[in-house]
Amino acid sequence: MALIVQKFGGTSVGTTERIEAVADKIAGFRDRGEDIVVVVSAMSGETNRLVALAQAINDNPPPREMDVLLSTGEQVTIALLCMALQKRGYPARSFTGSQVRILTDQAHTKARIREIDDARIRSELAAGRVVVVAGFQGVDDNGNITTLGRGGSDTTAVALAAALKAEECQIYTDVKGVYTTDPRVVKDASLLQTITFEEMLELASLGAKVLQIRSVEFAGKYRVPLRVLSSFEEGSGTLITMEEESDMEDPAITGIAFARDEAKITVSGVPDVPGVAYQVIGPVSDAGIEVDVIVQNVSADGTTDITFTVKRGDSRQTREILERVATEIGARKVSVDDKIAKVSIVGVGMRSHAGIASKMFKTLADENINIQVITTSEIKISIVIDEKYMELAVRALHAAFELGDPDYQPQGDADD
Amino acid sequence: MALIVQKFGGTSVGTTERIEAVADKIAGFRDRGEDIVVVVSAMSGETNRLVALAQAINDNPPPREMDVLLSTGEQVTIALLCMALQKRGYPARSFTGSQVRILTDQAHTKARIREIDDARIRSELAAGRVVVVAGFQGVDDNGNITTLGRGGSDTTAVALAAALKAEECQIYTDVKGVYTTDPRVVKDASLLQTITFEEMLELASLGAKVLQIRSVEFAGKYRVPLRVLSSFEEGSGTLITMEEESDMEDPAITGIAFARDEAKITVSGVPDVPGVAYQVIGPVSDAGIEVDVIVQNVSADGTTDITFTVKRGDSRQTREILERVATEIGARKVSVDDKIAKVSIVGVGMRSHAGIASKMFKTLADENINIQVITTSEIKISIVIDEKYMELAVRALHAAFELGDPDYQPQGDADD
Repeated sequence: MALIVQKFGGTSVGTTERIEAVADKIAGFRDRGEDIVVVVSAMSGETNRLVALAQAINDNPPPREMDVLLSTGEQVTIALLCMALQKRGYPARSFTGSQVRILTDQAHTKARIREIDDARIRSELAAGRVVVVAGFQGVDDNGNITTLGRGGSDTTAVALAAALKAEECQIYTDVKGVYTTDPRVVKDASLLQTITFEEMLELASLGAKVLQIRSVEFAGKYRVPLRVLSSFEEGSGTLITMEEESDMEDPAITGIAFARDEAKITVSGVPDVPGVAYQVIGPVSDAGIEVDVIVQNVSADGTTDITFTVKRGDSRQTREILERVATEIGARKVSVDDKIAKVSIVGVGMRSHAGIASKMFKTLADENINIQVITTSEIKISIVIDEKYMELAVRALHAAFELGDPDYQPQGDADD
Repeated sequence: MALIVQKFGGTSVGTTERIEAVADKIAGFRDRGEDIVVVVSAMSGETNRLVALAQAINDNPPPREMDVLLSTGEQVTIALLCMALQKRGYPARSFTGSQVRILTDQAHTKARIREIDDARIRSELAAGRVVVVAGFQGVDDNGNITTLGRGGSDTTAVALAAALKAEECQIYTDVKGVYTTDPRVVKDASLLQTITFEEMLELASLGAKVLQIRSVEFAGKYRVPLRVLSSFEEGSGTLITMEEESDMEDPAITGIAFARDEAKITVSGVPDVPGVAYQVIGPVSDAGIEVDVIVQNVSADGTTDITFTVKRGDSRQTREILERVATEIGARKVSVDDKIAKVSIVGVGMRSHAGIASKMFKTLADENINIQVITTSEIKISIVIDEKYMELAVRALHAAFELGDPDYQPQGDADD
């Protein structure tokens, strides 16, 4: 009998009806003889309700108590799911993070898992029970309740799968899996059957918000096969695998990601001396602003230009900081462009296939799209372009790299 | 520094504003140098919300999971109260039943406390913190969450006070304390400064619903001084003491209780043979019907009459059971009277003061009230009368035993 860890997020358990549907799904796996450990989030809306209660009392609530408060959300779900399973005749037991013993460090609201005691879960499985575990939470050495921060339930699921050496960790979401690009932009985007961890990491960080990055890293590190699939629709979803597919005929590109919520900042005429990049980026990071793409081109006349992107909402504050910095270091100018988009092609095949970059650039040139910034990594090429060309660029690249779903049938809309 | 355990029920913590008011009250005690352990219930309405979620999924939810679910209610309150205290600059830490380690038996939904580990609480108090404990919940030997059943938070408070040898256990409620009788019936009812445990037990079981009987028994057993007082109004409430007051001038009667939600059942012409009381009462108890007052008079003609009271809602089912029983044992008749009330006078002074019963009966005779049934215990005399005379009887007795508040000033009502 295979052991499978399944994680259902807040939307999948958002109502008692949906919890019953999850119970039906789990029952199906039990009927096929699988051992099941389920990880659940708080019912959607519940965490917001709890945060609002806290905020009404204390706008800077102590983190230890915040964890005591928020951890009740998942605790409600585990109890309800067990009730639904038992009604169907499937023995089940719920466990909080503390009861499993998911030991974490003491960093309240953003704790990291240190160790999982698998003894209790194994004995429950051996007794034929479905084990339902509260995601997002753990306990520190002193018995204090901790929470894992955003996307923590995914991390709980992956960590349990690693500790239990599960055959697979299945993350149920509201999408069918990982696509070659956003189907809202490219109609014939294909559902990927497999993707490597590295590709998934690049796609996740570039805006494919299917999985929390942290859980993907964690799964990669512990070699846990991770599958993303839909709570609401049938299908086997996308398996995130350790190994690059060996088939040489595979397309070199796996997917295309894009983001349009960034702003591009350029500091021009920066004296090209050691440490200057730090002088520019340092004060921005210190202000808590997240910096994404950074490029610095080779120096020409003893000065250089440094360009980077930040979230659009941070662009004004970034400009203010940099205008001060520019004066201090004697840079010529700070310019900000809010009307940009970032488009990235991702694929492990890039390593072995030459000509990917030039094919990308030619495709954009054919569409008359000017490239403002280019950065590359081992398995990714990102470009910054004028925002208004973003969808055109994504569609053109999707077609050029032949990522389209061969089975795609255009469907007549109601207003056709 | 004295250690005080304070318990605030669901109404007292029913909104974030009320939680803030509770924090203010606790802050006052801290300012006077007391060490404080607080026990709280779920915010009012929360338990009902959780029960409704469970019922939507499973109308017979497994008790273990019900406890996991319901225990989240108090967990929310402890976190919020600590947030309110910390905002006011009073260090505070919350603890679930499991974290304190309130060890119980394994009887889910109605567990009994076995042992309390006071080490963690003592070290938090020594560090100058207010300790906030979730009421109503504990943990069994295997780490399963348990709950203590109705009124469990009072029991938690008393048990903590006993374990910590607290100077006093204060139960905050929505009344100012224990009165000589219901002030809605007798306008000049007096607030009692003290009452003995025995009297409180008799009054509680007779309908003075200030405290859960179980917590009073528990407090009596462990000699924990218990004080009932208002969350919302100033005042020192009523202290429930071990010892009867030694002042000989004390009134013999402490209070008058009454109940009008019962029905009187009489089985007449029962053959007066050994075991017949069991044959009558046994089947009623077996059906889960709670039997209150039971009287059987001496036998005259080889038959006897057995009278008892049950909750009014159970009277039809009781009659059906007894009509079967009557045929079996050859009793003459089963009669049911729904229009009755029970009035009881309670006081430890009764033991040493003769003539209490005759004074009671004379008072009722003077008002032309017929007594249907009389039962007595060491410190209580209960009578059953026609329901329509209940208020008259309570007022007459209250006056006859001089229980009125000497400071009472009749106030003109709007419609006077």
